[in-house]
Amino acid sequence: MKSTIITIGDEILIGQILDTNSRYISQALNRLGVVVAERTSIGDSAEQIVETLDRALAATDIVIITGGLGPTKDDITKHTLTRYFGSELVYNEQVGDFVRELLSRRGIAFNDLNRGQAMVPACCTVLHNAHGTAPGMWFERDGKVVVSLPGVPFEMVHLIDDIVVPMLRERFALKAIVHRTMITSGIAESILAERIAAWEDALPEVLHLAYLPAPNIVRLRLSAYEVDGESVAAMIDEQFERLKAIIPEAIVGFEDATVEQLVHNTLIAQGKTLSVAESCTGGNVAAKFTAMAGASAYFHAGVVSYSNEAKIDILGVSAEDLARYGAVSEAVAMQMAAGVRHAGQSDYGISTTGIAGPSGGSAEKPVGTVWIGISTPERTFAVMKNCGTDRGQIIQRATAYAIKMLYEEL
Amino acid sequence: MKSTIITIGDEILIGQILDTNSRYISQALNRLGVVVAERTSIGDSAEQIVETLDRALAATDIVIITGGLGPTKDDITKHTLTRYFGSELVYNEQVGDFVRELLSRRGIAFNDLNRGQAMVPACCTVLHNAHGTAPGMWFERDGKVVVSLPGVPFEMVHLIDDIVVPMLRERFALKAIVHRTMITSGIAESILAERIAAWEDALPEVLHLAYLPAPNIVRLRLSAYEVDGESVAAMIDEQFERLKAIIPEAIVGFEDATVEQLVHNTLIAQGKTLSVAESCTGGNVAAKFTAMAGASAYFHAGVVSYSNEAKIDILGVSAEDLARYGAVSEAVAMQMAAGVRHAGQSDYGISTTGIAGPSGGSAEKPVGTVWIGISTPERTFAVMKNCGTDRGQIIQRATAYAIKMLYEEL
Repeated sequence: MKSTIITIGDEILIGQILDTNSRYISQALNRLGVVVAERTSIGDSAEQIVETLDRALAATDIVIITGGLGPTKDDITKHTLTRYFGSELVYNEQVGDFVRELLSRRGIAFNDLNRGQAMVPACCTVLHNAHGTAPGMWFERDGKVVVSLPGVPFEMVHLIDDIVVPMLRERFALKAIVHRTMITSGIAESILAERIAAWEDALPEVLHLAYLPAPNIVRLRLSAYEVDGESVAAMIDEQFERLKAIIPEAIVGFEDATVEQLVHNTLIAQGKTLSVAESCTGGNVAAKFTAMAGASAYFHAGVVSYSNEAKIDILGVSAEDLARYGAVSEAVAMQMAAGVRHAGQSDYGISTTGIAGPSGGSAEKPVGTVWIGISTPERTFAVMKNCGTDRGQIIQRATAYAIKMLYEEL
Repeated sequence: MKSTIITIGDEILIGQILDTNSRYISQALNRLGVVVAERTSIGDSAEQIVETLDRALAATDIVIITGGLGPTKDDITKHTLTRYFGSELVYNEQVGDFVRELLSRRGIAFNDLNRGQAMVPACCTVLHNAHGTAPGMWFERDGKVVVSLPGVPFEMVHLIDDIVVPMLRERFALKAIVHRTMITSGIAESILAERIAAWEDALPEVLHLAYLPAPNIVRLRLSAYEVDGESVAAMIDEQFERLKAIIPEAIVGFEDATVEQLVHNTLIAQGKTLSVAESCTGGNVAAKFTAMAGASAYFHAGVVSYSNEAKIDILGVSAEDLARYGAVSEAVAMQMAAGVRHAGQSDYGISTTGIAGPSGGSAEKPVGTVWIGISTPERTFAVMKNCGTDRGQIIQRATAYAIKMLYEEL
């Protein structure tokens, strides 16, 4: 069963917002066993919507549309779909009553524009949007399904999970899509491909291999589409077992586990605790850990010591060393890591101190220079990394290095 | 001048990665005056690439493709384009020498797969990729341009900025695209639309109005495509002046300025300083500020006090109050804000303490309960907010509320 995802909105085409809806819907459809053949973003134009729908319905069986359902004049998706399906707009009392109640809870009067949101195409099945004023709509034609959802991510997520996925499961007899990913580290993509070439050539035809390179990491994904899920999962396990024998030193995890998840799991398993002192990464290392449910079991404290005073007062860094070596130095990184380990009463401490730019660099310490400190019950040390030239990139890379260095110590 | 952006890769269609490349390229093309008519993501399939390219070239003048240029077998973009343009692959010595040097710096041997990366279609202009092993390619046919770039975001960004944008500017006579956005707060979208209906109806035909709702905020964007930039910018300024007279109380900023940018600008302008104490937001508030260049002028310290000990030892929260009221309480939020203001020797302090879930909630304090504290030279107070039910959502919302509350105090 194949599908197309269409996101509608000029804000996507001009790059004003990042399209996260498509990704969410892709994941939901894949889990369901529906292949996403294409994702398309188009503007708020009736002509483009009609053309794209024609094409999507010719090539695929399920079309999921988001966006263009707001109460204002720039939103035209509902009117366009009504004409496309040769229907007419009728007032839906349930939607009207719900919108009225939702607005009254927020202290907002129900007006003509809200009344317009309760007008739905007569031919569609209305999908109740419990979190917003625009309902979803489900259309059928010639055995194919078109679903239109609001573009507000939170509303879309609930409609997909609570209503669309169950309805699709009921409506179609779906086979499984299986993806499994092995995470390797330490071998460059081209060398890795060479080493596993014989294994790759001998893969069963149903399995598709993809290489997903990232800094320090290459993910190997095996995918099979519209298959019997259980037997293919076993087949993939067998292939990954063979791969383990070929590159035993390179495998660091499975699936989309990030390095911080690996650290998170390890700390919980070992019953150890962590505190973090950050200068240039500005809270990103702490945020990576605390984003994960259960982090409070091991995460004690984070300190974003941007000023020298904070380094001295909160972390106990030596004022003399700060003056002698500068804030971006091996000595200060080590004292920050040890200091936060102590202040947070924890087993491990990580620190980052560097020059995120765009200003503040020098010939000796250019923008991108970052010292990363690690303090464990056994030792405290620091390593210098050059993390690039762009502020955002430097923050991201320094964060990734710091977490990876801790992982290697555990 | 119209364009299509095509991103190639199964990892996008299955939702394994978020497609940030399309957004970056959309922004670059808009600044250049090139309209993005459509963005499409397709799989690593020669048939789909050819079909999509046919359609893109029929409808638009410029096509930017990313992805599918890696050294491994799953990457087929280059071979497909070579056949599409009736060309053949030839070895490019400059690319070969550069890849060899790049790899040797990383201590990696140059192998057959890397040699393959130096094979380029004879008919294309090679675009030097200073940051990776896959070069970009520029094709021309019937006055139209097709550009193929690697999918690694960092490599793509440099190729777009340093090479593709200047070449497009030279190649085509481009008019301007103008977008300006006014940020409003405090009026619901439907009410806002009603209040400014007369103004909207009287807009010059060349200006397109879009409503972009977000929690607490509605952005109003005026756009004009392929126009004389200067005169349209003046026209938009005039329209925004009229709007100011209609909804004077609702306007909080312009363009895509986030609330943290408004705080950032205000603190720098006032010469004031800030420190942040976070529990449930886990470093996200600090990260929002420190992501902005120049934050070191006002950002003194952040403390992620996840454990009670950290709240007591680093922030000076009363152990008695922690025991009596719990960590998620008005008293603790106020003491955290005042404590970090003091510890960080700064003018303002913000704090967050709440239950991010999924566990830890109770009937009295359900998951999503967050106390946000603000401490200023004049007063210290805290406000309770319910920030939702999902951990990521709770962290994001609590972060947004905390920053917005500080903004209102400045």
